[in-house]
Amino acid sequence: MMKIDILSLFPEMFEGVLHSSILKKAAEKGKVEYNVVNFREYAEGKHKTVDDYPYGGGAGMVLKPQPVFDAIEQAKASSPSPAPRVILMCPQGERYSQKKAEELAAEQHLIFICGHYEGYDERIREQLVTDEISIGDFVLTGGELAAMVITDSVVRLLPDVLGNEESPVLDSFSSGLLEHPHYTRPAEFRGLKVPEVLLSGNHRLIEEWREQESLRRTWERRPDLLEDYPLSNQQKKWLTEWEKERDS
Amino acid sequence: MMKIDILSLFPEMFEGVLHSSILKKAAEKGKVEYNVVNFREYAEGKHKTVDDYPYGGGAGMVLKPQPVFDAIEQAKASSPSPAPRVILMCPQGERYSQKKAEELAAEQHLIFICGHYEGYDERIREQLVTDEISIGDFVLTGGELAAMVITDSVVRLLPDVLGNEESPVLDSFSSGLLEHPHYTRPAEFRGLKVPEVLLSGNHRLIEEWREQESLRRTWERRPDLLEDYPLSNQQKKWLTEWEKERDS
Repeated sequence: MMKIDILSLFPEMFEGVLHSSILKKAAEKGKVEYNVVNFREYAEGKHKTVDDYPYGGGAGMVLKPQPVFDAIEQAKASSPSPAPRVILMCPQGERYSQKKAEELAAEQHLIFICGHYEGYDERIREQLVTDEISIGDFVLTGGELAAMVITDSVVRLLPDVLGNEESPVLDSFSSGLLEHPHYTRPAEFRGLKVPEVLLSGNHRLIEEWREQESLRRTWERRPDLLEDYPLSNQQKKWLTEWEKERDS
Repeated sequence: MMKIDILSLFPEMFEGVLHSSILKKAAEKGKVEYNVVNFREYAEGKHKTVDDYPYGGGAGMVLKPQPVFDAIEQAKASSPSPAPRVILMCPQGERYSQKKAEELAAEQHLIFICGHYEGYDERIREQLVTDEISIGDFVLTGGELAAMVITDSVVRLLPDVLGNEESPVLDSFSSGLLEHPHYTRPAEFRGLKVPEVLLSGNHRLIEEWREQESLRRTWERRPDLLEDYPLSNQQKKWLTEWEKERDS
């Protein structure tokens, strides 16, 4: 069973997400245990202060080392792993990817540190953190949503978590190409028709159409994915045709 | 006031996130109104079915056009905007960025469509959707977390939403470089000391140290950000020195 500890000053943010859908089912099946810790509880002093002004001046507040160090030590004390991953959510971090999700899914214990508009005292980074992760080049009000994103993408990869009904039509990154379009009933909706080939019952033609549309969409939207993709001769031919069409 | 409608089959996932911290305050200040819609309520038929098997066969389920079309029409009927943005969360979409967040923050009405392991009938894409967005190259169990990420990054940009106390030490992408390290009290924690320059009171030296560390971190972790960055002569000199050190 994987253990996930999340250190946050806004533990209530996690309620809905950890207790719905797949993340809930995974916990019920005993595949994962979540523990959301308000690290303010670890702060020394009457006022339970977790942040303070930055040395050297400037705007904003900085998370103090003490409450985070103590909360992490507590989490490590009952760890199922000799070396839990301690993950800091921050814009300077390594860009998150499906490969990283697979790497984390092989671990027994993840500990997330979520700041919330505060900066982190650098000693937290240097002494405690094993991974700094950013989910993208955009600014969030805190690390909480990023921690939820990572938790979701990791937990769905744990063995026996996804059932058949959740079978991923959406696993674009496993084939290396973007998905082809999907259609379901009715065959005509408000005058909009499903492509005839999909109604033909001819599986060879359907497969060919899907392969072609998948390649076309990748070529149009994410040509970078084709750079390392092992194209078949047929696929190369299609690409040449489309390039000709585009340039004419 | 911005209006945000979110179509999801798991509305309970949004509770904690929309009712905490900045997103909550923004709604209380009347800067934004959230409306989470379970589009199953719009499904026709006794069983309120929202998905069906894909035409042409294959694993997984596909969201039917009817409930989504009807829910979007309802949302548009009371729109404050003549052309609300209808955003589909999907891995094939445009990669989300701070620039896109700024673009969306200028709108009056955003409507998010969140699928949950299902695919989308292509007619939804073609007829309703104005923006397809992906938050990164990783697989989530649904579009809900991505919609929360976008909502958070957009709402914090609305005028008068962030107060002084939330002043972003973390706005890495506004300067174009990654942040320098932050430190707060105590000056020594478990033997770990704050760099002396930050305690010196010499503001010129402090600024120089910060500029240098910010550049160094960007050079080490995200050299791609330096490609379009207007480097000063001093900054070019530092980079040359570091490159020499590294290569020696």
